[in-house]
Amino acid sequence: MEATARAIHPPPSSHPRPAQAPSSRDAPRSGPRLGSGLDQFEILKRRAADTPGLISFAGGLPAPGEFPRSKLAASFVRALQTPSCPALQYGWPEGDEDLRAWIAGQLRRRGAQVARDDIIVTSGAQQAVSLAAQMIRGSGARIGVDPESYPGALDLFQALGATVIDDGSYVDAYYLMPAVSNPRGRRMSRGHRARVLSSLRPIIEDDAYADLSFDGPAPRPLLADASDRVFHVGTFSKTLCPGLRIGWLVPPRALRADVLQLKQSDDLQAASLPQAILEDYLRNEDFDQRLVRLREFYGRRAARMERALRRHLPGWRFDPPAGGFAIWAEPDAEPNEAFFLAAAIENGIAFDPGSLFRAHGAVSPFAVRLCFSSVARDEDLDEGVRRLARCWAEVA
Amino acid sequence: MEATARAIHPPPSSHPRPAQAPSSRDAPRSGPRLGSGLDQFEILKRRAADTPGLISFAGGLPAPGEFPRSKLAASFVRALQTPSCPALQYGWPEGDEDLRAWIAGQLRRRGAQVARDDIIVTSGAQQAVSLAAQMIRGSGARIGVDPESYPGALDLFQALGATVIDDGSYVDAYYLMPAVSNPRGRRMSRGHRARVLSSLRPIIEDDAYADLSFDGPAPRPLLADASDRVFHVGTFSKTLCPGLRIGWLVPPRALRADVLQLKQSDDLQAASLPQAILEDYLRNEDFDQRLVRLREFYGRRAARMERALRRHLPGWRFDPPAGGFAIWAEPDAEPNEAFFLAAAIENGIAFDPGSLFRAHGAVSPFAVRLCFSSVARDEDLDEGVRRLARCWAEVA
Repeated sequence: MEATARAIHPPPSSHPRPAQAPSSRDAPRSGPRLGSGLDQFEILKRRAADTPGLISFAGGLPAPGEFPRSKLAASFVRALQTPSCPALQYGWPEGDEDLRAWIAGQLRRRGAQVARDDIIVTSGAQQAVSLAAQMIRGSGARIGVDPESYPGALDLFQALGATVIDDGSYVDAYYLMPAVSNPRGRRMSRGHRARVLSSLRPIIEDDAYADLSFDGPAPRPLLADASDRVFHVGTFSKTLCPGLRIGWLVPPRALRADVLQLKQSDDLQAASLPQAILEDYLRNEDFDQRLVRLREFYGRRAARMERALRRHLPGWRFDPPAGGFAIWAEPDAEPNEAFFLAAAIENGIAFDPGSLFRAHGAVSPFAVRLCFSSVARDEDLDEGVRRLARCWAEVA
Repeated sequence: MEATARAIHPPPSSHPRPAQAPSSRDAPRSGPRLGSGLDQFEILKRRAADTPGLISFAGGLPAPGEFPRSKLAASFVRALQTPSCPALQYGWPEGDEDLRAWIAGQLRRRGAQVARDDIIVTSGAQQAVSLAAQMIRGSGARIGVDPESYPGALDLFQALGATVIDDGSYVDAYYLMPAVSNPRGRRMSRGHRARVLSSLRPIIEDDAYADLSFDGPAPRPLLADASDRVFHVGTFSKTLCPGLRIGWLVPPRALRADVLQLKQSDDLQAASLPQAILEDYLRNEDFDQRLVRLREFYGRRAARMERALRRHLPGWRFDPPAGGFAIWAEPDAEPNEAFFLAAAIENGIAFDPGSLFRAHGAVSPFAVRLCFSSVARDEDLDEGVRRLARCWAEVA
């Protein structure tokens, strides 16, 4: 019984969730006291959200200052003006037709041969990964992932009863982020790409950060080279805003009707209102121009955090990320992870502990994910790293 | 393998989906050509949405004229004004705190002892039913339903591998709509309620239409009498608008943490933006007053459709509904169901075929669900029934 399996193996906390800098009064407030199934990191995360003045390097959140608020509001007002008001009504399970056409157009520019009707709009990328995983899992399917990967996917695979493989041994399918990985912010190497493609296995290609490569437009997706076995996943959460909760899935054509049935059983359809707002916004704005600006913005923040780390924590190793929201850093000692995080929060700085990103929760080699994406001001990157360094000096 | 089970048994089309009167140019357009797994009713439904001038009695859609457009727009603009903009950011998996407090308050007024933290905001009622069903199903769990029930739930239970029981024989759990049933629009009898409660079985209580009893406020929910084994499901889709895609689940407290994990694996959280709009709207508007007006509005439409049926189709039997969006009618002959629906669409009138509401797709006794809720004008009810009568005279 699946529910029991989920209950017996409470996965580590998933990301992204807000451990947002609560220096502003409208930051997410503390949630309820949750049951004993909840692990210590969840409790610490909620404590962080309640800590005034805390700087958060946690959560994988985009910068709220980059949300195009007034443009989205204008799109909302326009979307309400059609007489039968589809923005507020039920819609088709596959999603808005024009929105799907726009998504297909973006993928075609990257070399994938996809049509509007290949796209299924989902309730965020998480649902897209969930639908894909439900289609490919058998009993105990072995899903291959990077040694560090997206916790929301790792949790999901384990909840579905799949075996997550992170050591390169035999797998039945892959879950990968080839363009920009999370948490490392790496582009997949040519050799790795060739090996994965020649394996002939099904692949869940999570492209959440693909448009946020610091060196330019998103690369050719795996979808373009193996559309018959790639489940391609995308989202507007990183490039526009997460609050719309709109992602997409391009399943292999042979499975499209089944995926759509599954989607419909899950939640009927992605919300009409965010889709209508998005469709209007994309029709009226230059999204490519927005992406150019965002790449520059996050690239600059990454560089600033790198400088701060080299200065204040010279013993920490990291590779400068090629894109995305975070730096994956490996400190030069191995303190107790939960103890370090709790101490950091007391010192006004939060981060994501490295074990969250590992299928089996390994704490060694000791690592942290530091998100430069969502702090209120660039200067918070320096101050945050200073706090981290002070705290590190105490515990390491 | 679940995906295969779903693929082998394509369920009948689910509701609600728009087979909306496309007299207006912005009605949902035709979707893609779907695979062979799709049944004939899905094709007919999409054809109906493409038929100019068609009057639709299908789909269980609320009246678009009753959507509070300008108030929702005002709420959106206000929700964007807080500095860190939680409306556009990620939020907690359990949902907005103030929204949950509001929902809990409504349930307390109906006699249920629930607190804010008992509520989980979901991506519509469908997801709430899906989460509940995943928690109670064992391999082949027997879920008891009314002889006619909500197709989205029937599809879901079958997809999950449960056995749907509609003949009163032994069950492991129930799925029920005690306040206002769908499709019959009935209040559960006292005797039935007592029997269900004394069974000591888990119950999924789908309260989607509870606020739309024509004779007054929603009744005491089963949740109030068995909170330790009721999964209570609610939604704003019928009383406000479906486009927000916001519902809720009150699971038994002992299972709350597990349900929350499951919710998070599915899609992380319900969309922040619709939650923020709703929270602001409910804080600023008199929702009770709105419900009073809606009960009067739909009650008046029900009475008008009843009169039209008695006049133009005097041989059709039906019980006047006690609430909701539809009349369940049993005509006085048994033509081929798909043929009748296809002919009706050609004659400019659509309805939901009765077999959709039956777990095993039985076409006998022949029945149709006629939604009076979403036609553009009250007069369309008369004209729609006239078209239906003309078509009936041809096929019956």
